[in-house]
Amino acid sequence: MAPNSDPKQQLDFQKGNGLVTAIAQDDATGDIMMVAFMNEQAFDLTVETGEVHYWSRSRNKLWYKGEESGNTQQVKSMYIDCDGDVVLLKIEQKGGAACHTGRRSCFFRKLEEGGDYEVVSEPLFDPKEVYKK
Amino acid sequence: MAPNSDPKQQLDFQKGNGLVTAIAQDDATGDIMMVAFMNEQAFDLTVETGEVHYWSRSRNKLWYKGEESGNTQQVKSMYIDCDGDVVLLKIEQKGGAACHTGRRSCFFRKLEEGGDYEVVSEPLFDPKEVYKK
Repeated sequence: MAPNSDPKQQLDFQKGNGLVTAIAQDDATGDIMMVAFMNEQAFDLTVETGEVHYWSRSRNKLWYKGEESGNTQQVKSMYIDCDGDVVLLKIEQKGGAACHTGRRSCFFRKLEEGGDYEVVSEPLFDPKEVYKK
Repeated sequence: MAPNSDPKQQLDFQKGNGLVTAIAQDDATGDIMMVAFMNEQAFDLTVETGEVHYWSRSRNKLWYKGEESGNTQQVKSMYIDCDGDVVLLKIEQKGGAACHTGRRSCFFRKLEEGGDYEVVSEPLFDPKEVYKK
């Protein structure tokens, strides 16, 4: 069903050369799972399907999250920030892991006193098994 | 006290033309307060002082968060993401409001069915009173 208003009109894609930043937050726990980017098409598809689509800068293509791993992200709610260049996605993470390393969250390195990082979570899946070439 | 390691060596400032994305998340509630950027100096100052410093793209200058409003952000913990271009700051928000509109969070517009946004929070302070020119 077509919406009455086009929600991407409130977003500023120009500032980021056609992209806005997108944050995926676990709707149940509040954990931040990952940060990526959306172009207009990825935003539209996310709104239309209720499944998160990003724009992959490294692969330079539309990225249906979970297309390879099966770990899709189901949208529970969406917010935009005050200046319209960030989208907050409250999601349910299918398969429990968002990170390409197999970990639940991409933010698995915690800064410790002394300047080193501690790895605070372990992979839930083996990326070599999941991302077959 | 100088750290043993330089924690910014794990960050990729080059990808973002000298900047990494920084997310401020309320340490107590998990609410995402704002998203901004850090250059190397802002990152160093944040680590050294325990108070969040950003790089303001619009003003093109170092930005000690709260320098005008008094609403500083005290670092509780810091994380970096898998590819080192995002910093997650778990913070205590002094004054209760992070957004320049006076609201607690910059993410105060929620996407509704039909494509419009609902404003889901009200300002805690009057920006005209706080940001005097």
